[in-house]
Amino acid sequence: MAKQIITPVQKRFSDVDSFMHVNNIWQQSYFDMGKTAFYTQVLGITGVFDKLRIITASTHTDYYGQVRLTDDIVVVTDVSRIGTKSMTLHQRIMCGEKCLTESSSVMVAFDFETQQSVAMPEAWREKLADYLIHSEG
Amino acid sequence: MAKQIITPVQKRFSDVDSFMHVNNIWQQSYFDMGKTAFYTQVLGITGVFDKLRIITASTHTDYYGQVRLTDDIVVVTDVSRIGTKSMTLHQRIMCGEKCLTESSSVMVAFDFETQQSVAMPEAWREKLADYLIHSEG
Amino acid sequence: MAKQIITPVQKRFSDVDSFMHVNNIWQQSYFDMGKTAFYTQVLGITGVFDKLRIITASTHTDYYGQVRLTDDIVVVTDVSRIGTKSMTLHQRIMCGEKCLTESSSVMVAFDFETQQSVAMPEAWREKLADYLIHSEG
Amino acid sequence: MAKQIITPVQKRFSDVDSFMHVNNIWQQSYFDMGKTAFYTQVLGITGVFDKLRIITASTHTDYYGQVRLTDDIVVVTDVSRIGTKSMTLHQRIMCGEKCLTESSSVMVAFDFETQQSVAMPEAWREKLADYLIHSEG
Repeated sequence: MAKQIITPVQKRFSDVDSFMHVNNIWQQSYFDMGKTAFYTQVLGITGVFDKLRIITASTHTDYYGQVRLTDDIVVVTDVSRIGTKSMTLHQRIMCGEKCLTESSSVMVAFDFETQQSVAMPEAWREKLADYLIHSEG
Repeated sequence: MAKQIITPVQKRFSDVDSFMHVNNIWQQSYFDMGKTAFYTQVLGITGVFDKLRIITASTHTDYYGQVRLTDDIVVVTDVSRIGTKSMTLHQRIMCGEKCLTESSSVMVAFDFETQQSVAMPEAWREKLADYLIHSEG
Repeated sequence: MAKQIITPVQKRFSDVDSFMHVNNIWQQSYFDMGKTAFYTQVLGITGVFDKLRIITASTHTDYYGQVRLTDDIVVVTDVSRIGTKSMTLHQRIMCGEKCLTESSSVMVAFDFETQQSVAMPEAWREKLADYLIHSEG
Repeated sequence: MAKQIITPVQKRFSDVDSFMHVNNIWQQSYFDMGKTAFYTQVLGITGVFDKLRIITASTHTDYYGQVRLTDDIVVVTDVSRIGTKSMTLHQRIMCGEKCLTESSSVMVAFDFETQQSVAMPEAWREKLADYLIHSEG
């Protein structure tokens, strides 16, 4: 069974908009925290200050329910596709058993010196395989 | 030819992250400003405090290039689909003739009293038709 | 010796600006998390949805050093003044033994039904006394 | 009479919190936009990518009233003190004739190569003098 990275989220009062729920842009920020945790814990990189970085090519997000300030939520991150130069991260904002928001992001390996996308290291591909979900694989 | 709503964006220093470009979450915020302008100028509603509101069901965003602090950008908003209860807004962050980011959002008419999605008013559908792009219609 | 509320901070990538440190506005947000923790843990209120709320009259902040993305920081909150209708919260962003930023906020008890500032309940004043620092008391 | 820099603010939906007014951290961001405009228009610098930068040593803010999403606001920036290595910027968020928030910031000239505060160029001091308010001068 595929492994997952689970990231608890510390909400901020300013995340909540006048609809009394967490604004969509901050939900994207929660997914970013999940990505950062994934890079650190799975790939052993920060993805930020390294020569080889990971950039976002595209995201798709489905909003199923509202995230309230008092909801105890986590971001669950796994992998739905492993390509040569890119991978697709699959992420969910979960409140208990309930999925409030689901997002997929195509992430590309990018060499900041040559400013070009490059093949992901084989070491990454091996580590990613543990987190690959089969239903969407 | 389809009409468009063009919204200039006032960037903020805090929009820019340590990669020296506008962080993706703030690009989503720019698209939100385009949506607000569209609702006001095309539908004549604020979408915020009305009984009949418009909520986001899903978004898909493609990142083609970086948005720099000094780039003079606008958000261009038009319509790629008009449904019964929902419409798809098509949006682009443009720097001159160059499209840096492109996004589509499925927006649903939502009655806040009954907390249910509802059919869009016929008056909306007529107004939306002027902004419908044909290539993706 | 005065008690303190210590609040660990989960930083976000978007907190960091192009100077490669946490932008000042997000440091204010960290102080807000400390205030929320203080209200909940000391006063037993959320301060948000209650009839009797706490609003900010003024803040003064001194920036001594930079907060980096990788710094392990906490917000330390105590009380420097207990008035009749207001209190002054004293807060510091600490990285180990080092104080990076220090802030004082005059917070006023506010009745949202009458829209007027009111005397703080005696129960609050008793609880606040445990957190009153003497050097600035 | 002292000159002023007036900066219109483009508000964002996510600036507004669950109290239905602009959150304090975003008001700080509005003041930042005023500072950026001041540096560009008065000093002719960006303050961002130059060798000689301007950093914030401290801020003091008084909140007099609420900023609503629909308020048409500007940030007014002038100077309340000109020192050798620092200046104090005086800023107000105005809605028509009404001052909603007032803030003073001690800004220090900072050499990023030597990482030390330095004397402000004489050319800056001359330009700043035109914006010096006399009541607080």
